[in-house]
Amino acid sequence: MQVLVLNSGSSSIKFQLFTMPEETVICAGLVERIGLENARITYKTDTNTLEEEVSITNHKEGLECIASYLMDQKTGVINAADDIAVVGHRVVHGGSSFAETVVITEEVKQKIAELAPLAPLHNPANLIGIEVAETIFTQATQVGVFDTAFHQTMPVVAYKYAIPNQFLDTHYIRVYGFHGTSHKYVSEKANAFLGKAASRIITIHLGNGCSMTAVKDGKSIEHSLGFAPMNGLIMGTRSGDIDPGIIFHLVDSLGYTMEEVSSLLQKESGMLGLTGFSDLRDIEAAAEAGNKECQLALEMNAYRIKKFIGAFATVMNGLDAIVFTAGIGENSDVIRKLVCTDLDFLGIQLDEEKNAVRSKEIRAINKEDASVKILIVPTNEELEIAKQSVALLE
Amino acid sequence: MQVLVLNSGSSSIKFQLFTMPEETVICAGLVERIGLENARITYKTDTNTLEEEVSITNHKEGLECIASYLMDQKTGVINAADDIAVVGHRVVHGGSSFAETVVITEEVKQKIAELAPLAPLHNPANLIGIEVAETIFTQATQVGVFDTAFHQTMPVVAYKYAIPNQFLDTHYIRVYGFHGTSHKYVSEKANAFLGKAASRIITIHLGNGCSMTAVKDGKSIEHSLGFAPMNGLIMGTRSGDIDPGIIFHLVDSLGYTMEEVSSLLQKESGMLGLTGFSDLRDIEAAAEAGNKECQLALEMNAYRIKKFIGAFATVMNGLDAIVFTAGIGENSDVIRKLVCTDLDFLGIQLDEEKNAVRSKEIRAINKEDASVKILIVPTNEELEIAKQSVALLE
Repeated sequence: MQVLVLNSGSSSIKFQLFTMPEETVICAGLVERIGLENARITYKTDTNTLEEEVSITNHKEGLECIASYLMDQKTGVINAADDIAVVGHRVVHGGSSFAETVVITEEVKQKIAELAPLAPLHNPANLIGIEVAETIFTQATQVGVFDTAFHQTMPVVAYKYAIPNQFLDTHYIRVYGFHGTSHKYVSEKANAFLGKAASRIITIHLGNGCSMTAVKDGKSIEHSLGFAPMNGLIMGTRSGDIDPGIIFHLVDSLGYTMEEVSSLLQKESGMLGLTGFSDLRDIEAAAEAGNKECQLALEMNAYRIKKFIGAFATVMNGLDAIVFTAGIGENSDVIRKLVCTDLDFLGIQLDEEKNAVRSKEIRAINKEDASVKILIVPTNEELEIAKQSVALLE
Repeated sequence: MQVLVLNSGSSSIKFQLFTMPEETVICAGLVERIGLENARITYKTDTNTLEEEVSITNHKEGLECIASYLMDQKTGVINAADDIAVVGHRVVHGGSSFAETVVITEEVKQKIAELAPLAPLHNPANLIGIEVAETIFTQATQVGVFDTAFHQTMPVVAYKYAIPNQFLDTHYIRVYGFHGTSHKYVSEKANAFLGKAASRIITIHLGNGCSMTAVKDGKSIEHSLGFAPMNGLIMGTRSGDIDPGIIFHLVDSLGYTMEEVSSLLQKESGMLGLTGFSDLRDIEAAAEAGNKECQLALEMNAYRIKKFIGAFATVMNGLDAIVFTAGIGENSDVIRKLVCTDLDFLGIQLDEEKNAVRSKEIRAINKEDASVKILIVPTNEELEIAKQSVALLE
């Protein structure tokens, strides 16, 4: 069965085509800079990688472009659009409406549109992707997989804010959590790897966005991102947790506009604001060469993660494993080492030799006799979307 | 030696007169509703409690009123203003300038004034109190004791936010922490009670404002309040930690003004917003009677405290004792029990019988064989101010 996974952003569409249940990637790529003069497509198969500038003025043209490459005589991997049985769409915000993956219906689309105020950068783009896919892959079942769904199991003490009740009841302001597809995927992989249901796991997703989840008995019960994807851990350009008092001070005393503060906290802060670099590899290299700002930023980043490890272990009243995943989590032995230092009271003890080994495989990097397992689990949100989409049809 | 301790708020002046070093309270009270028609003074000695409406239009008249009661033939406890050797002033915000208690000089007053933007409700009132006291108690040494001073030992990884560096360097935006006088006092009492320097203590101050401090080797190294006194724990009317994304959503999507949001988060949230009650005793009574909102609010309150216990134990890599203090911390066995439930993996085990006993004394309420001590330590910020003021003169 051919399953196409689409992740539509505001000016891009990422795609991967799988054969399922074999989990084989047939091709993958993205269309980016939609609407700009230098829009382009990247298209990879086992044998080919193409990067071409193309004229793409909107998402419809973008997805048509992807379809044409998929079916092209030279680059193609399918014969016709109808070869695609399922299109799995990443949808960022499912609000409190979607605790599960669903087949897209008119009602589901309506709901995704209604949730746009909660994810103004993402949900409208996700919806356009769905609507365009329906016109091209007319025979396929369209499926929605929500970033927030995995976190719908959080108990009310974890998701409710201490503000008047009507803000939850009327305005739906609560912790939703994000990166749910990744946290679900890696926590299940970790459980399988450990050979038993490790009942208390903390998954640490460190990529462009960063978040942590407390996974108890396979369910998300606590999470570091909240109502919007900007708080919690220090990210590439986002501040993570910050005293709201600072926002009032910036606006009331220092004359900033709300738009400027929003941009400051989401685009100019985090590792970029602390170091001038947004790529962690540059920061690690500079820190290694003695740059004090970069050294401090790495320490702050790890310190923040440590605080969440402690908080999440405490609400689970124990800890069996911590799991590093996503670009930074899988590849930065520096961050992993900083995080795992001086945590032996929790049973966390890093094997530095194992930590230094690079690999694409799931692996444990704790000392043999440590009570808490430290795992690296490569994430694969696209595969998880494909799996969930197929599972829904069965 | 007679030591007068003053805590000047925006419309009130609290006072206590001590004989030191005996630590005897000679009298205590407050002037409140300064500037309003129904201003009044409460004045307590060992033998008398007076509550009288008085005409007080400003802080000068308020402090003159207190002085006149102190020296009055009937109510008085001193003969003349010059009997007061030291006046110790509570000052809320010492910024990064004051890590210690200081004798008030022109330069110190200048600095307190400069820090007003960081504590607009408190520092100007504190400064007026100092200036008026100088005109009445002309022979006394005026001393400033800062709420933020104890936290000046926090390491940079704990006090710095992940926003561009110039906001720390130019605008002094960092974690300052508050209730420092209380956290210092109870952590020292706890150490003395435990008969050794318990190296890793978490102090939990639960009063009108609520905050927690990680005290390692007697020094504050981490704290739950930040730049302003509104984040961290759930308080009577303040939300504590909240995703900053909510502020942008309220303003950008729901049409709130910044002033409305500030008022919402500081005056209408917390336990009040969740239950309609701001007094914890009412909430506990309603919860006991089956009120679901009140039950949930108590659970949320304790859950938040638990997360900070875990985070702070983790950055200290261990935990020797937790200390409850201030009005709620000293008196609410309900909150203490909710906090200490299901934390045995940290070594926290509450003795429920000991927890239920009411007392004004410092005491341990953990199970005998638990590895972490749970203490109740009555706080006394006024006495601590008196002690620090006297210590400074010696």
